[in-house]
Amino acid sequence: MKNDPLSPPVGMRDFLPQKKALRNHVRDTLIRQYEQFGFGEIETSSVNRIGLLNNGEGGDNEKLIFKILRRGEKLNLETAKTGSDLVDLGLRYDQTVPLARFYAKNKHLMTPVAKVIQIGKVWRAERPQKGRYREFVQSDIDILGDGSSFAEVELITATIKALSAFELPRFKVLINDRRILSGLMDKTGFAEAEMPQVLIVLDKMDKIGLQGVKSELEKEGYAATAVQSIANIIGSLTGDNALKTLKEKLDNVDSAVFEEMEGIISTVRQLGEGDFDIRYELALVRGMGYYTGPIFEVQTEGYPWSVAGGGRYDKLLGKLLQSKEDIPACGFSIGFERLVMMLEDRNFEVPRSGEKVLVLFDKREAGMHAEIMHMCTRLHAKGYHTFVDKKRKNLKNQLKTYGENGFRKYTFFRPENNDAAVMDIPAI
Amino acid sequence: MKNDPLSPPVGMRDFLPQKKALRNHVRDTLIRQYEQFGFGEIETSSVNRIGLLNNGEGGDNEKLIFKILRRGEKLNLETAKTGSDLVDLGLRYDQTVPLARFYAKNKHLMTPVAKVIQIGKVWRAERPQKGRYREFVQSDIDILGDGSSFAEVELITATIKALSAFELPRFKVLINDRRILSGLMDKTGFAEAEMPQVLIVLDKMDKIGLQGVKSELEKEGYAATAVQSIANIIGSLTGDNALKTLKEKLDNVDSAVFEEMEGIISTVRQLGEGDFDIRYELALVRGMGYYTGPIFEVQTEGYPWSVAGGGRYDKLLGKLLQSKEDIPACGFSIGFERLVMMLEDRNFEVPRSGEKVLVLFDKREAGMHAEIMHMCTRLHAKGYHTFVDKKRKNLKNQLKTYGENGFRKYTFFRPENNDAAVMDIPAI
Repeated sequence: MKNDPLSPPVGMRDFLPQKKALRNHVRDTLIRQYEQFGFGEIETSSVNRIGLLNNGEGGDNEKLIFKILRRGEKLNLETAKTGSDLVDLGLRYDQTVPLARFYAKNKHLMTPVAKVIQIGKVWRAERPQKGRYREFVQSDIDILGDGSSFAEVELITATIKALSAFELPRFKVLINDRRILSGLMDKTGFAEAEMPQVLIVLDKMDKIGLQGVKSELEKEGYAATAVQSIANIIGSLTGDNALKTLKEKLDNVDSAVFEEMEGIISTVRQLGEGDFDIRYELALVRGMGYYTGPIFEVQTEGYPWSVAGGGRYDKLLGKLLQSKEDIPACGFSIGFERLVMMLEDRNFEVPRSGEKVLVLFDKREAGMHAEIMHMCTRLHAKGYHTFVDKKRKNLKNQLKTYGENGFRKYTFFRPENNDAAVMDIPAI
Repeated sequence: MKNDPLSPPVGMRDFLPQKKALRNHVRDTLIRQYEQFGFGEIETSSVNRIGLLNNGEGGDNEKLIFKILRRGEKLNLETAKTGSDLVDLGLRYDQTVPLARFYAKNKHLMTPVAKVIQIGKVWRAERPQKGRYREFVQSDIDILGDGSSFAEVELITATIKALSAFELPRFKVLINDRRILSGLMDKTGFAEAEMPQVLIVLDKMDKIGLQGVKSELEKEGYAATAVQSIANIIGSLTGDNALKTLKEKLDNVDSAVFEEMEGIISTVRQLGEGDFDIRYELALVRGMGYYTGPIFEVQTEGYPWSVAGGGRYDKLLGKLLQSKEDIPACGFSIGFERLVMMLEDRNFEVPRSGEKVLVLFDKREAGMHAEIMHMCTRLHAKGYHTFVDKKRKNLKNQLKTYGENGFRKYTFFRPENNDAAVMDIPAI
């Protein structure tokens, strides 16, 4: 497969009409839902200056850039010492870094609070594996310029509404706040950088219990006092009361943070339509280093991964743009490829804009182009899409092929004006 | 501009919501029109193996490839001697070469005659100039596997229908056949390779007359006998009769070629809807070397360039795939960027899926997230899209900003259930 010159490059894909139709439907549905909440789609260039991509905020993704060779005079192989002497551009690996550039450039042309949709391709030179691609689509919504938690409420509500359009199984929204996590680390004597590893262990509470968590943390070499201290807090949390308990224990965290979290949860719970729940989850961390406040994720029953994730990143834009001021920003991304995979897995049927009819003409009628097309026009007027082909000797086989390509109807061309009936293609 | 780090790279673009909405509308409209005729959208990878892109059939475009640096172990700067030692992939410069690969790979999964739409980005490292981009969208339809001129009829009819959806000025379809042009060159003693230059001169007939054409050709160094010979034929052509006259004079061209041409013209004239004409045009050549039969173009009154072009290329797929057999293929491409430019030029208004309403809340109501969102939900039910913002001190100014961003309606949030009226934003 790897060396088949007819395949796309490793980790990249082609899409046949039926797969592409599903992708188009997902894209269109997401946009339609998001637009209700005032979001508008923007687009940034797929190709970016290498300096922007290598800004230090892209995390591991910066190691995965597809870099573009300089052209013409600017390419000097003799003096080039490293790859970067040869490179001036690269393909974007996410849509957040280009959004920062876009916003800095176009802020004055946008509404004071900007609500943007981005559904586009990104490229990452990852080690290929099942379900992980080197060219794939990301679907992001972001609210820029709103520091209030109304942004979170709207992002989460819009995402729930968008996902609800696809007849997915029950899903749950998990929410946490980076400031609570930092407070917990600080209070119990862990370093901020240890947060991810510590929380992976805490997340096993259900399976190994508090004692198991403690011994695992000690085995990993964390200080006994810190482990005891975090165990005391974690041990006192009881399900729905976790947030309230943390608020009491973490007096180093501004109580407004907890109130905001409670506010978001209760508001979304009131508002959201569809079969979902939202709850606080202490073990939710999210990968990217740039989050500064609330972080959230959507999980779907029966699937091992989250289908959407996001959070507030008030410092990223200012940092990327070397501005002294923070620019409040908050985003929620739906895993486009995962969503498509789930829908395929569930045999989701794409609504058709018009039913395709195979129009078969006879060998003797092959030259009657105008008459055949006139019949098509009459079928278009009835809302059908037409697909004309010559009747083959083995009609049954021919219909089977078209059936496999998603056709459900066929008819025969009649040279006169009295059209033949539209018939069903027998099921395979 | 060139070195502004906030701009996209040279020749590439970002799109603000209103521009992106127009582009989305054009894309969706084209697809909807094409689908009526049985076309289905496919997608190929944007990134391709460099060997496929450098196949020798891409013409000048092969010089314009954005090449991607090898990654990891495969990049060896020490031993690299030329740019191609460093490169394994590149961005596609058209959609025809990738289509050939796609078709060879997936033919067995498609209908015997395949009708495909491709609307996607391509990249070319062209010298930047007004209206010429390095990252732009192409919109192609192709019929693969149909050697009959029904393919041309359907492509031209579908393209006319697609263009007619945009309220453009009257347009004309020009059509010619490469086999007639070859026959003319051969008959009059020109080399096939001289065709483009000779025809550029012939095209000036209207302005400089037959004598002018003759002397210009002689000045360019063509043999006097050849010039006299082509002048004799061209001089005998009279408007609508051109095709008939050429059929008599060019006995080296199969008469079926002329009958096919006449058939396509009369059929399309009968079928096409909208304000257009189709006529034979001897001076139409089209750039790419790979055309083998009918070639066609659409011109629009008042615009200096063609908005669509295409033709039959029966040998390209076989050649690219190193197959001994020809694969009949015929395509028609709408200049997506030109079409968008024309629509912007004509202040084309994108139909709205829902009217956006600016919902303004008062400072004192800032915390009432649930109530505000409930009001939004009631507005959604009435078909509105909502966009929430805090009422600023200078309301007039605020409304002006939103007006500039395409908003036409606003309302005030009311905490009670009796919503305020939706009002018009004063025109700017």
